[in-house]
Amino acid sequence: MGLTEIRTAVKVDLKKPADQQPLLHVRSADHTFIKHLLTFFRIDGIQTAGAPLHNPPQMLLTSPTVPFAAKVKDGEIFKVECVDWTGGQIGNNDSADDVKNIDLTKIHYLSGPFEVEGAEPGDVLVVEIQDVQPFQEQPWGFTGVFDKDNGGGFLDEIYPNAAKAIWDFEGIFCSSRHVPHLRFPGLIHPGILGCAPSAEILAEWNRRESHLISTTDLQRIVAQPPQPQNVHAGSASGELKEKVGKEGARTIPGRPEHGGNCDIKNLSRGSKVFLPIHVPGAKFSVGDLHFSQGDGEISFCGAIEMAGVITLKLSVMKSGMKDLDMKSPLFLPGPVEPHYGPSRYLTFEGFSVDEKGVQHYMDATVAYRQATLRCIEYLRRYGYSDYQVYLMLSCAPVQGHVGGLVDIPNACMTLGLPMDIFDFDISPTGPAKKIEMGACAVASK
Amino acid sequence: MGLTEIRTAVKVDLKKPADQQPLLHVRSADHTFIKHLLTFFRIDGIQTAGAPLHNPPQMLLTSPTVPFAAKVKDGEIFKVECVDWTGGQIGNNDSADDVKNIDLTKIHYLSGPFEVEGAEPGDVLVVEIQDVQPFQEQPWGFTGVFDKDNGGGFLDEIYPNAAKAIWDFEGIFCSSRHVPHLRFPGLIHPGILGCAPSAEILAEWNRRESHLISTTDLQRIVAQPPQPQNVHAGSASGELKEKVGKEGARTIPGRPEHGGNCDIKNLSRGSKVFLPIHVPGAKFSVGDLHFSQGDGEISFCGAIEMAGVITLKLSVMKSGMKDLDMKSPLFLPGPVEPHYGPSRYLTFEGFSVDEKGVQHYMDATVAYRQATLRCIEYLRRYGYSDYQVYLMLSCAPVQGHVGGLVDIPNACMTLGLPMDIFDFDISPTGPAKKIEMGACAVASK
Amino acid sequence: MGLTEIRTAVKVDLKKPADQQPLLHVRSADHTFIKHLLTFFRIDGIQTAGAPLHNPPQMLLTSPTVPFAAKVKDGEIFKVECVDWTGGQIGNNDSADDVKNIDLTKIHYLSGPFEVEGAEPGDVLVVEIQDVQPFQEQPWGFTGVFDKDNGGGFLDEIYPNAAKAIWDFEGIFCSSRHVPHLRFPGLIHPGILGCAPSAEILAEWNRRESHLISTTDLQRIVAQPPQPQNVHAGSASGELKEKVGKEGARTIPGRPEHGGNCDIKNLSRGSKVFLPIHVPGAKFSVGDLHFSQGDGEISFCGAIEMAGVITLKLSVMKSGMKDLDMKSPLFLPGPVEPHYGPSRYLTFEGFSVDEKGVQHYMDATVAYRQATLRCIEYLRRYGYSDYQVYLMLSCAPVQGHVGGLVDIPNACMTLGLPMDIFDFDISPTGPAKKIEMGACAVASK
Amino acid sequence: MGLTEIRTAVKVDLKKPADQQPLLHVRSADHTFIKHLLTFFRIDGIQTAGAPLHNPPQMLLTSPTVPFAAKVKDGEIFKVECVDWTGGQIGNNDSADDVKNIDLTKIHYLSGPFEVEGAEPGDVLVVEIQDVQPFQEQPWGFTGVFDKDNGGGFLDEIYPNAAKAIWDFEGIFCSSRHVPHLRFPGLIHPGILGCAPSAEILAEWNRRESHLISTTDLQRIVAQPPQPQNVHAGSASGELKEKVGKEGARTIPGRPEHGGNCDIKNLSRGSKVFLPIHVPGAKFSVGDLHFSQGDGEISFCGAIEMAGVITLKLSVMKSGMKDLDMKSPLFLPGPVEPHYGPSRYLTFEGFSVDEKGVQHYMDATVAYRQATLRCIEYLRRYGYSDYQVYLMLSCAPVQGHVGGLVDIPNACMTLGLPMDIFDFDISPTGPAKKIEMGACAVASK
Repeated sequence: MGLTEIRTAVKVDLKKPADQQPLLHVRSADHTFIKHLLTFFRIDGIQTAGAPLHNPPQMLLTSPTVPFAAKVKDGEIFKVECVDWTGGQIGNNDSADDVKNIDLTKIHYLSGPFEVEGAEPGDVLVVEIQDVQPFQEQPWGFTGVFDKDNGGGFLDEIYPNAAKAIWDFEGIFCSSRHVPHLRFPGLIHPGILGCAPSAEILAEWNRRESHLISTTDLQRIVAQPPQPQNVHAGSASGELKEKVGKEGARTIPGRPEHGGNCDIKNLSRGSKVFLPIHVPGAKFSVGDLHFSQGDGEISFCGAIEMAGVITLKLSVMKSGMKDLDMKSPLFLPGPVEPHYGPSRYLTFEGFSVDEKGVQHYMDATVAYRQATLRCIEYLRRYGYSDYQVYLMLSCAPVQGHVGGLVDIPNACMTLGLPMDIFDFDISPTGPAKKIEMGACAVASK
Repeated sequence: MGLTEIRTAVKVDLKKPADQQPLLHVRSADHTFIKHLLTFFRIDGIQTAGAPLHNPPQMLLTSPTVPFAAKVKDGEIFKVECVDWTGGQIGNNDSADDVKNIDLTKIHYLSGPFEVEGAEPGDVLVVEIQDVQPFQEQPWGFTGVFDKDNGGGFLDEIYPNAAKAIWDFEGIFCSSRHVPHLRFPGLIHPGILGCAPSAEILAEWNRRESHLISTTDLQRIVAQPPQPQNVHAGSASGELKEKVGKEGARTIPGRPEHGGNCDIKNLSRGSKVFLPIHVPGAKFSVGDLHFSQGDGEISFCGAIEMAGVITLKLSVMKSGMKDLDMKSPLFLPGPVEPHYGPSRYLTFEGFSVDEKGVQHYMDATVAYRQATLRCIEYLRRYGYSDYQVYLMLSCAPVQGHVGGLVDIPNACMTLGLPMDIFDFDISPTGPAKKIEMGACAVASK
Repeated sequence: MGLTEIRTAVKVDLKKPADQQPLLHVRSADHTFIKHLLTFFRIDGIQTAGAPLHNPPQMLLTSPTVPFAAKVKDGEIFKVECVDWTGGQIGNNDSADDVKNIDLTKIHYLSGPFEVEGAEPGDVLVVEIQDVQPFQEQPWGFTGVFDKDNGGGFLDEIYPNAAKAIWDFEGIFCSSRHVPHLRFPGLIHPGILGCAPSAEILAEWNRRESHLISTTDLQRIVAQPPQPQNVHAGSASGELKEKVGKEGARTIPGRPEHGGNCDIKNLSRGSKVFLPIHVPGAKFSVGDLHFSQGDGEISFCGAIEMAGVITLKLSVMKSGMKDLDMKSPLFLPGPVEPHYGPSRYLTFEGFSVDEKGVQHYMDATVAYRQATLRCIEYLRRYGYSDYQVYLMLSCAPVQGHVGGLVDIPNACMTLGLPMDIFDFDISPTGPAKKIEMGACAVASK
Repeated sequence: MGLTEIRTAVKVDLKKPADQQPLLHVRSADHTFIKHLLTFFRIDGIQTAGAPLHNPPQMLLTSPTVPFAAKVKDGEIFKVECVDWTGGQIGNNDSADDVKNIDLTKIHYLSGPFEVEGAEPGDVLVVEIQDVQPFQEQPWGFTGVFDKDNGGGFLDEIYPNAAKAIWDFEGIFCSSRHVPHLRFPGLIHPGILGCAPSAEILAEWNRRESHLISTTDLQRIVAQPPQPQNVHAGSASGELKEKVGKEGARTIPGRPEHGGNCDIKNLSRGSKVFLPIHVPGAKFSVGDLHFSQGDGEISFCGAIEMAGVITLKLSVMKSGMKDLDMKSPLFLPGPVEPHYGPSRYLTFEGFSVDEKGVQHYMDATVAYRQATLRCIEYLRRYGYSDYQVYLMLSCAPVQGHVGGLVDIPNACMTLGLPMDIFDFDISPTGPAKKIEMGACAVASK
């Protein structure tokens, strides 16, 4: 009857590193006390070319065998606290050294996996995202451009250095001393949510991704295989832990069978996500909270990453996968997205001809990269550095749309920049007047 | 002072084939009579593998040397009539044979090129799209799925046959006897608009596209080179005509330097497009009118193609390319797009793992294709054939968004389908009840 | 099958006065020729205090006995041409003498009444407004401020003189030489639509309005009674004509039982209106087309009045009044209204304390008047005359909202002005810089 | 630099009655400790006909002489906790006895008045509402229908009894066991904010409202005069307290000179309000937090009333009143309002003919009342009781719009009901199927 506060299923101690979080207590919404082990796991990491492969990643969301951390009822509303996806490695300061030197084996911390009462393979888990909030006591987040040799990003061939912006949360808005004259409301959301794969699906992931790794020669890391050493597998130990380590897929990519790290900005407050269930109890996990993100999250650590709390309602749709003929997640966005009116989006066109003049065949990825570069060139006129705009486009609510995808050989993509998030006029009326824009945080040499 | 009707700069005789349109008369808005040669040109065609290369395409929009067809003043408002992009090859009937057998050397008819008073290379042409309307006497349009061996499309490996839907225009709405239980307002727009390239830009186009042709082995046509035979080059003749034929690029693709065939659905009524100018007088052309289109225009002839009239205002922003640091077109959409509220878009996630289980590296094109396939599977449950949905997704106002483009190896794209365009409930609540859906037009065997 | 143009049920000759329109021919959408008498009727007029009561108004929409003008099928889509509501009395020029001297006995011309096949009292008429367009050959409209002694308006005690603005239609947009630096897309709609009353309802109207007239002492005309002299009643003659004249209510007000002259700006393209039916055949009439209107239509002739054509679909919902428990019209607006985003509406608060400092009790009318005055004061700072703003607020897409209506004694109403319709910045950032604003059309002394 | 939590300027102890709140400590955002007296004052009450006039209301927001409670810097961001406007008189239970018997002399508790550094008469206070949140530990609110003899409301002549609904907050959404099958996101906002009047303005208020009281004979209370007995005037005592009591106006109505209790639902998160300043230091107060409200707040206690915390940024615009020619507050709504698309609002028309058939002259208040009655009749068909709908329309995000306000004698108002807040289909398609709707809380006999 709503007489009391919605209970928090997972509590975080912000003063401790993510891998030292204590056992956590869980209460269900109906006041029944459930005592449960609930830890945060280091989930995944990106191994860069030269880095030794110690401290391998773990696989809370990507293994069918990691034990449950807590149980929730069908239809229950509850809260989950989450650390930021780097587990607190990034500080609120004016240097990007922490981004440059980030330990990518200690990232993608999630909360879960949750056992959902009555969930069976073939069912669909309906996730209603009732709210997402930063912690009151930590009203800030960060956006990072990773070093090309330690993580990289969408534009790393052009912008190879580490950079960072700290964003202050002012109620529903945020602004940054590192990217001034900009302020926008957060389209707050979790970057990652999904249910664990079955053993068969996990095997398929490993097959197809290792095939890519073995057949691609792009002079860059194209995917990450499982890493058996030093596994953290929740409360698993012994043989089970060893098994998890050998098989568990990496959390980095979203995957069609379960969603995962999709980084879809519209999975925000009020949205309803329909997730395939592959194992008994669903094994739902969530994390990587974003205060805001632009379509594409282009700098990789591109959203405004934050620690916070998410309020969820999980329901089971029996036999949903068959009834909906569902292979990948569906969702209905929420009704409260920021809206500016279509004519307030300054929109840049990008085509699949790259910045070196090379013609690609119908490549929407190349086309979207070009649209982001056009936007950087445009905003540079006002005094922003390229890195400032790169950070901005990663996290501000920019709209990345498909234009035409059939006119050979050029894919056309568009990037829409809401003009109302600036405190000066950026409309295309003529030469730009430069403004003092300060600087984003950069790494020491 | 608006005392009289806005004059129509280009008139079309709907009873004649596009290549037999008579000379046309032009009046400027201020009542000064301008007598001018104004013809429609066959612009381009897609050459399929086995087709003989006679009847080559022309290049009104893609050559710097095609003579002007008419002149307009800086700031003038005028109307231009346009044939449909196939020049009337497609009929309002229930067979897709016309689509199957379309002569792709007789397509992409445009109106222009217009000489804009005072326009010089380096300026920007500001195009305000004041209105787009179908002809009163032809209140219908068509969407075609091309045969894989004669044009193809985004899903041609899965759906290789020709198909067609005729759409009846009911005021601002349209509906189709070939895809029933569906009705939506048009986000009406021109598929093609742009200014002619300079000789240098044209040379660069030919260089990079021929490089792609010569270095790609995809077992399909990846781009089309210029075709010197049988050129139609407006009022050009003799040596000039020969030169146009040898050099002129194909109109099929949009290109970063001038826009062109971008097929961006949001370039609709009320939008303001900023185009780079590369030749004196701008040589602006427009055509390929669409009553509606979904993001991606996936079946290639995927918009609701129509003949009609576009009302334009062209203004010159002197030195605009430098002042805006512009390399590709920009635009501001208009304020009257249909809007349903975000929570009314049923959204499908697609990842860069293709339908055969092959893992692609960060490929947004593959990911968007997967999102469209998920939507086809979903709507098939209600009784629609796959070809009906393929046609529908090409032309209905679906939103194709970039999700995450940095989580190796999976790009994530989303496709949002507005639920309010159906006259039955398509929300994901359980098993679907099949409805009698008739059939789209198909080709005879 | 949509093979041919949608037929126009009513044709207008723009060169003749409204009361000299010839008999008109009607075709149904399915090509069956229907020959029918279809005239335009002078419907109503506002009698000012000193004006002689000759040329009394007529009552096409407000009498159950006016004969049908044409017949339409249930579900048919057809077009109707309409003159402007003044029947062409207002000219495209720079004097407001025509507004000052308007003959208010020759206004509110409608098209109809239409007989809808199968419609019976107690049914509901579902009217889908498929499109509304101005005539191609008359791309302009007007907004008038009536003289306080000949029509008046919402602010006539403060602004008693006649004024006028001519609006040029530029595609979906309009602008005016009389109110410069302003441009907006039309939310185009009919000011009047409805079905005729039954004899009982008509009697009730006459009862309650004559009661108001006889019991009110406001020193102004508060309502208009029927006028039996010189009746124009369509094709009625003799006794029938006499009866119509004696009983027929005036068209000026909308009325709860049938809608009528509601002047609701959102009854625009794509909207679906549900109207009670009180007489066999429905006797549906429509007219008073508006290119645009602000909430309230405050200057009385406040919308952008125009002649044009409306495309309609009429369907009968049998027993709808009982099934929906309907006493007054319902509607669903269309999905294509202009939208600017909520944060782009500069919003003025008004309270029920009038401009003389008199406190009114919970009077939303007074409160809305105050909100409009606040807006006039605000925009005056930029150089607009008060009459220019009065004209602007009547026809631009301003939003008039109820704030609080329960906090005695003050009603609070708000008026939201979209900032994006101006070509200069009107945001509240400090002192205004005056701009040369010219003048609206005024009446000679 | 946002390193730490935004400080809360005012703290509330939810376990104590509002008039026993302890002295409160205030910290500014920049860590400087400010020790200040900060109490909550009983501000106002509605005196019903028979009630004794003890415990008279106070006038924190409506008196120039109440001492400041705290000081904030120009540009500072800070939080203020607020009790609900009844000071906790209403319980989370299933009886409306508490509503029926509410002590209306103990309501309208506000937080303030705040002294804003540098604010002078003639300046404008720019209030940015950064966020509004309910208290974590009290995730519920209430809507009440007051008894006609103790408070009343917009429809009290038809619905004279007390009723209540408790709303559970589920993240950004709310739902009620008392009005089932309904769920909507809150457009959360303060019902009251404003700056204190000058002595001259206060005198004017008293003059005009006492004039109304003395000249109106409506058989109901039309306004409330000051009440000198038992004054609570913050930290004022002695003569000052006596003076406040004699002169201070009631908080019930919003007033044009300063805003106050406007109950405008769009003053929500992200909005920017421009308030006239009449006294040195501004004396800004805020309170009466609403989780959601419909236009009009028709049941008087009609919003979802709640206790919670508001995050504000106050800035001073020097000489703003003159520069903006401002007499009443202005505002810009925020960009994150829930949005459903215009075609999802089922809209009811109301006219100024009352439910007894009496014709009123251009009375928008009567017209809006009729629109609400039409909606009640419509929703009653599904099984809701009239009181349930009355409660619903008071607090759900319904849109109350001005239609036409110039067509004598009928004002036309519309009420738009978002169809997507129901979990069943309410579109007007035919007879309604009744649903088990339970009951709202009612008062014992």
